[in-house]
Amino acid sequence: MKLVIGDKLSSSWSMRPWVLLKHFGIPFEETLIRLGRPGTKAKILEVSPSGKVPCLVTDAGDAVWESLAIIETIAEMYPQHAMWPRDTAARARARSVSAEMHAGFADLRQNMPMDLSIHAPGMGATPGALEDIARIEAIWAECLAKSGGPFLFGEFGIADAMFAPVVMRFHSYAPQLSATSLDYAKRVTALPAVAAWIDDAREEAR
Amino acid sequence: MKLVIGDKLSSSWSMRPWVLLKHFGIPFEETLIRLGRPGTKAKILEVSPSGKVPCLVTDAGDAVWESLAIIETIAEMYPQHAMWPRDTAARARARSVSAEMHAGFADLRQNMPMDLSIHAPGMGATPGALEDIARIEAIWAECLAKSGGPFLFGEFGIADAMFAPVVMRFHSYAPQLSATSLDYAKRVTALPAVAAWIDDAREEAR
Repeated sequence: MKLVIGDKLSSSWSMRPWVLLKHFGIPFEETLIRLGRPGTKAKILEVSPSGKVPCLVTDAGDAVWESLAIIETIAEMYPQHAMWPRDTAARARARSVSAEMHAGFADLRQNMPMDLSIHAPGMGATPGALEDIARIEAIWAECLAKSGGPFLFGEFGIADAMFAPVVMRFHSYAPQLSATSLDYAKRVTALPAVAAWIDDAREEAR
Repeated sequence: MKLVIGDKLSSSWSMRPWVLLKHFGIPFEETLIRLGRPGTKAKILEVSPSGKVPCLVTDAGDAVWESLAIIETIAEMYPQHAMWPRDTAARARARSVSAEMHAGFADLRQNMPMDLSIHAPGMGATPGALEDIARIEAIWAECLAKSGGPFLFGEFGIADAMFAPVVMRFHSYAPQLSATSLDYAKRVTALPAVAAWIDDAREEAR
């Protein structure tokens, strides 16, 4: 199967399924379309009906788009991996926080866009963005307390992949965070799959 | 189990799981919190950690929030009902369009808010809203052509529930639509579960 993504420096939505697939060692072909260039939209539309990345193209040639739909589909394809928690109640909570990330936090996204090439502490710290960050910290703290860590629901899984781009934003804009959040962000950053994405992004920036 | 929702006139996110549960005859207790009043936020926070409705509270007392997460959880709880299409490729597509609805169409939402009490043809028809509508019509047309109808993936299911609030917006703002879209909107509106929601909303408006 093929995963069509945008620039690794900035495509936060692309990062999620990419990191998930890498972490679980699932082989896939990668097609990177540079965003914001002449012809970008047409190139994406050739594979993704929504005109957006990421888009998964299955071996049967079917397009699956939207990070969360791609991830649900991958989780179904590889039931041997506990991408969602095995426990029913934990899985429902993992889906809740993942869907909240998928559809929410508009202020954070707008004011602190993912861009792995910049380091600008304090930038974008609007009241709305700070409110979003407070909610994210509450989610992380509650999940880590309930699961015992090291990741949101124990071992690394979908919910962590959904929040990985937020960790990247925190590196760039360095908002004030609790020790719990900082430690969690460190663990996410150190994960080989996440580190591989960051390395690729740095190559892109050269 | 209990479904906590907002006003039926306006809470588009609440409509989705409510209609799905009703359509499949799944018993649930309903708690309606009036939105935009003093104390609304506090009341919602008592049950929903995100401070938003809808929120499902399971028999075990666990909160599940975000319409899409609630719906995935319900689909898992009642595998005897084909809420998602049984076919793998169709299911991946149903998840794609449902997630696209969950996270997208911001212009439509902002300019044509769901409000079953108003009829204002032409209102909110900004270029962005019209672009969103064009994409929604393309989704409907493609899904209906592939499945043969009468609903997006054959029988009524999750994808239809996700788009049901859009049908309500179309009733209020009456944008120009294809015959295919109008017919589909009619079928959604006539569905007993949707008609029941509309009736309740009208009661609310009195």
